[in-house]
Amino acid sequence: MDSNWTLMKQGLPDVPTWQEYLYKKLEKNARIGIDPTLISALDANSLKSSLKPHGSQLVELDTNLVDQVWGSSRPARTLNPIVPLDVKFSGRSTEDKLKDLRDELKKKKVTAMAVTMLDEVAWLLNLRGSDIDFNPVFFAYALVTLDSATVYLNDSQVDDTVKKHLETNFVIKAYDSVFEDLKQFGSSITQKESILIGNKTSLAVASALGFEKVVINRSPITDAKAIKNSVEIEGFRQSHIRDGAALAQYFAWLEEQLNDGATLTESQAADKLAEYRSKLDLFKGLSFTTISSTGPNGAIIHYSPDPETCAVIKKDQIYLCDSGGQYLDGTTDVTRTWHFGTPRAKEKRAFTRVLQGHIAIDTLVFPEGTSGYIIDSFARRALWSDGLDYRHGTGHGVGHFLNVHEGPHGIGTRIAFNETFLQAGMTVSNEPGYYADGDFGIRLENIVIVRPHKTPNNFGDKGYLGFEHVTLCPIHRKLVDLEVLTTQERVWLNAYHKEVFEKISPLLKNDPRALSWLERETA
Amino acid sequence: MDSNWTLMKQGLPDVPTWQEYLYKKLEKNARIGIDPTLISALDANSLKSSLKPHGSQLVELDTNLVDQVWGSSRPARTLNPIVPLDVKFSGRSTEDKLKDLRDELKKKKVTAMAVTMLDEVAWLLNLRGSDIDFNPVFFAYALVTLDSATVYLNDSQVDDTVKKHLETNFVIKAYDSVFEDLKQFGSSITQKESILIGNKTSLAVASALGFEKVVINRSPITDAKAIKNSVEIEGFRQSHIRDGAALAQYFAWLEEQLNDGATLTESQAADKLAEYRSKLDLFKGLSFTTISSTGPNGAIIHYSPDPETCAVIKKDQIYLCDSGGQYLDGTTDVTRTWHFGTPRAKEKRAFTRVLQGHIAIDTLVFPEGTSGYIIDSFARRALWSDGLDYRHGTGHGVGHFLNVHEGPHGIGTRIAFNETFLQAGMTVSNEPGYYADGDFGIRLENIVIVRPHKTPNNFGDKGYLGFEHVTLCPIHRKLVDLEVLTTQERVWLNAYHKEVFEKISPLLKNDPRALSWLERETA
Repeated sequence: MDSNWTLMKQGLPDVPTWQEYLYKKLEKNARIGIDPTLISALDANSLKSSLKPHGSQLVELDTNLVDQVWGSSRPARTLNPIVPLDVKFSGRSTEDKLKDLRDELKKKKVTAMAVTMLDEVAWLLNLRGSDIDFNPVFFAYALVTLDSATVYLNDSQVDDTVKKHLETNFVIKAYDSVFEDLKQFGSSITQKESILIGNKTSLAVASALGFEKVVINRSPITDAKAIKNSVEIEGFRQSHIRDGAALAQYFAWLEEQLNDGATLTESQAADKLAEYRSKLDLFKGLSFTTISSTGPNGAIIHYSPDPETCAVIKKDQIYLCDSGGQYLDGTTDVTRTWHFGTPRAKEKRAFTRVLQGHIAIDTLVFPEGTSGYIIDSFARRALWSDGLDYRHGTGHGVGHFLNVHEGPHGIGTRIAFNETFLQAGMTVSNEPGYYADGDFGIRLENIVIVRPHKTPNNFGDKGYLGFEHVTLCPIHRKLVDLEVLTTQERVWLNAYHKEVFEKISPLLKNDPRALSWLERETA
Repeated sequence: MDSNWTLMKQGLPDVPTWQEYLYKKLEKNARIGIDPTLISALDANSLKSSLKPHGSQLVELDTNLVDQVWGSSRPARTLNPIVPLDVKFSGRSTEDKLKDLRDELKKKKVTAMAVTMLDEVAWLLNLRGSDIDFNPVFFAYALVTLDSATVYLNDSQVDDTVKKHLETNFVIKAYDSVFEDLKQFGSSITQKESILIGNKTSLAVASALGFEKVVINRSPITDAKAIKNSVEIEGFRQSHIRDGAALAQYFAWLEEQLNDGATLTESQAADKLAEYRSKLDLFKGLSFTTISSTGPNGAIIHYSPDPETCAVIKKDQIYLCDSGGQYLDGTTDVTRTWHFGTPRAKEKRAFTRVLQGHIAIDTLVFPEGTSGYIIDSFARRALWSDGLDYRHGTGHGVGHFLNVHEGPHGIGTRIAFNETFLQAGMTVSNEPGYYADGDFGIRLENIVIVRPHKTPNNFGDKGYLGFEHVTLCPIHRKLVDLEVLTTQERVWLNAYHKEVFEKISPLLKNDPRALSWLERETA
């Protein structure tokens, strides 16, 4: 940002909240212009009520003033074709999803729901797009009542097949007509009726519907989408097997390159991984920018290598690679950490501590009604015993051929993001790490699915849950300090490697390099 | 309770809150009489504001109507002598504690604090009483300003020595004059000044001071008292060594009795334990009613045996004993579970799972800034893996020759009671359990002290903490399923037993039965 701007990162200790900032900066009785499509109704409400004693108010603008300045130099919005996702991948028809949603609306005693999150619209309609990099969504809104359903999208993005697919359940209207329609709908319902909107829905939508008409709540689609059905779960398994083959090919290739003395930048290497993935069945793109990082860059948690300037991968440094793919049958997200030379003792020690945390989550059995906030510390215990820790959460939900990060659950230290109870069918990442600033970074990430777990007892009739890992990629034995592992942890590692070999090796018949690498790494 | 009463346990799912109940039962604009000494100002505030829309109000009564009905048949209040606690036990003089408190008041920009919790008054004054069974406190209030301090107590309870001890720092006034004095003090300060009261202080105190004059907050004395100084910590260690000797004597005696076919009720056994404790140096009484329970009674978490009707201890049932003593140098609270015959497999399995949870807490290392809410699940993990759990917290704070349960911290599943960060110097119990209704109960409880822990690294410059156990009593090997324990857990158990033997055996020279029992149980 140039010197015209001051960056104030929300949530950091010495950074004022919006409220505090406005109180300090503004004269009383101020009018604060705001683009209502860029703030949630919930945040706007809280801002409004804290501005009241100050006599100040938010003024919703019809046009965004920054957009006006930007003018015609602004790149056009991406409007790529929208394609149907077959029920053999989604596992549940739009018709059934609509029925479930309407049952929820009846239970909640609301007349309708405005669906505004792009991944929720895509999930509900069993459609996918590519308007936003890595996230297979498209620009759309939906309005679902007890007996009608309307979708607002750009006509240019849908062909006749998609229209036909949609028209059994939805009326299709122009994207641009949504606010006018919401206004009309809001004023058409009786005083006793109300419209549900999710807690991330924009102020613009709430205003259009009429504030007295809306009920803001956690979206029932967020909850339904988070619990994968059996077809989606099987898709997660299958897509991760294929993804594991690409990972084996890539890491085997990379090792050979470095052994041969090749000069490879982080970005060039990432491109090779993308190339391997792109050859896989049902591949639809990457699920996020690959984090391909050597040495100190691995300690930058959200690093992404710039093709122009990024570092050359060094054989005598830790290499951390966090990557993922989008497939018709699932979304992957996997991190592995390697050393192609001779690792230092402290690198092995930290890696082993991270691995112990990873295993502690993977093997955990817990009762229904347990949140990710409660179990996060299992991932940290081994690190803590060495005075180590990491400054990110342990896990995030993962969409099914949708956003690689999705709510409402997670595993982590911030209660607001991790208080949702883990339920059977949820997908979540298991990714403890350790980062030595300026030196190296370590992260080990598998995707796991929450599954019912059979226990010899069932105290409190709660039902017990466990995790099934679907990510299949060797965990670098060279970086494991065996003396630190318990017997149970060694058993786990051997069993995991056996499983990886059995599931991945059949896909590597045409890549002897990868196959022998896999054999060695899982031995 | 007889049929005139309906019991409504607060917090249970189908039980209405006070608010809900009042809303349902009352006509609008009702006047609800309340004894303001029996409700906290905080609860009263929340009740008042939720009654407002209903037009109803709380009316503070000068006299308690139930007391009036009770009349002269009511037993007199216990008013036992108040005695000083030497600084060689308390570790910090009243003068120094007052100085710390005044520093806190200055930091908080308040003029004074009304000290209303009995254990806080006792701690601040370095005095102890016995007006309430098991809790070495006495009826008193204190009012501390930046340059004066007044204590309100019954003159009959203090002799000249105590008066002298007190009068260096405090003005002594009659207990009955406190509310009049608070009223006067509240009206004597300026509009800009305010008086701190703890969040458990009664409505009566807040009203007397004037609601517009008080600031309700967590009491700084609660926080200071929770962090034991080095003298108190050494006292905890020493009192637990002596306490451990009495436990060894008692359990050895009990085993012999049962082996000899003696008929002993739970209560008779408990009396014997009290007799052993009463012979120890610095003994001042029990810290709570001994839970001495055989078989199914052990599954009743807060069981206490009725001398008239309680069960006979059976050799072929699990025996659970939770007990503790008050000593001038510390307070103890210990639970052990035994089987004097041949335990069943499921009893051993459950005992071992509980033990694993106990060890998981005992050996935990964690960074500063960690709450007991976050670490509670370490105590449950082993149980969870068998589909077992327990319906109580894992740990509570422990006073120093004060209440055996004290805040503000704890280890448990209810966030409101366990969100305080654990800090070096805090004492807390480690007491996972398992209860099979109608069959048996298991609990293993040690008191641990939070201590700085040296780690090879110090990530984030947070500082790391660990636990030091002070309770010294064998953990019943007969109930341990060795196959279930990890190597590390076996090592822990052996080291713990070695420590118990080394520290306790010197005190058992005159009790060969106890000594040989200790030798066997710690082998």
